[in-house]
Amino acid sequence: METAELLKSNNVKPTVVRMKVYNYLVENKNHPTADTVFKSLLSEIPTLSKTSVYNTMELLLEKHLIQAITIEEKETRFDADTSDHGHFKCTKCGAIHDFHADLRNLQSDLPYGFTVDERHLYYKGLCAKCK
Amino acid sequence: METAELLKSNNVKPTVVRMKVYNYLVENKNHPTADTVFKSLLSEIPTLSKTSVYNTMELLLEKHLIQAITIEEKETRFDADTSDHGHFKCTKCGAIHDFHADLRNLQSDLPYGFTVDERHLYYKGLCAKCK
Repeated sequence: METAELLKSNNVKPTVVRMKVYNYLVENKNHPTADTVFKSLLSEIPTLSKTSVYNTMELLLEKHLIQAITIEEKETRFDADTSDHGHFKCTKCGAIHDFHADLRNLQSDLPYGFTVDERHLYYKGLCAKCK
Repeated sequence: METAELLKSNNVKPTVVRMKVYNYLVENKNHPTADTVFKSLLSEIPTLSKTSVYNTMELLLEKHLIQAITIEEKETRFDADTSDHGHFKCTKCGAIHDFHADLRNLQSDLPYGFTVDERHLYYKGLCAKCK
């Protein structure tokens, strides 16, 4: 689906900024921060403000079109891949890798009556290069 | 094991502040922030500084005696229970609940050669009361 159509079907008005931000996250799978997205799009949209990027992130999160990765204590990263997968952070080089994990079939004893909207799995350790 | 012994066996000098902070986390399983721990201990230790609490948290984290919960974008919470378990956050009332999850046996396709030191599982949704 084209980005404009995807946004519209989720009741998001497809402004230029929203489309550019969403497409950036789809094309850049390195889990950028909002600041990285802002700096990367500034040459294309010279009138872009940080606030506008942050507001766009909040809106896309609210519509579950992207997910926030809070594996790091001090910064939030974003991911347009909202399928079930885990994030592995190498504590040496800092890179964040995706990995498949069967989260929906994970055995857990969540109390009766609780409903789950989002699942996040974070691993920390050493990648093959840094080990 | 007594707290002083536990700290010593992990090469942490058992100062009063370190013991009080660790014991607070063991006794208060509501996943407090460093700020909550600081405010709670201030009447017992009037000379306590925020920096001292933050430094203690960093040290205890480094020694894997506690874990950091980064389920919330804007704040870090702490947990003295370092066994495999998940954290569920109710997006309505904000409470964080522990739940058992068999993380070590979760099927995942982590790349060859990667080693895992920490596993964190976060769910977000509605608790039984708020549903």
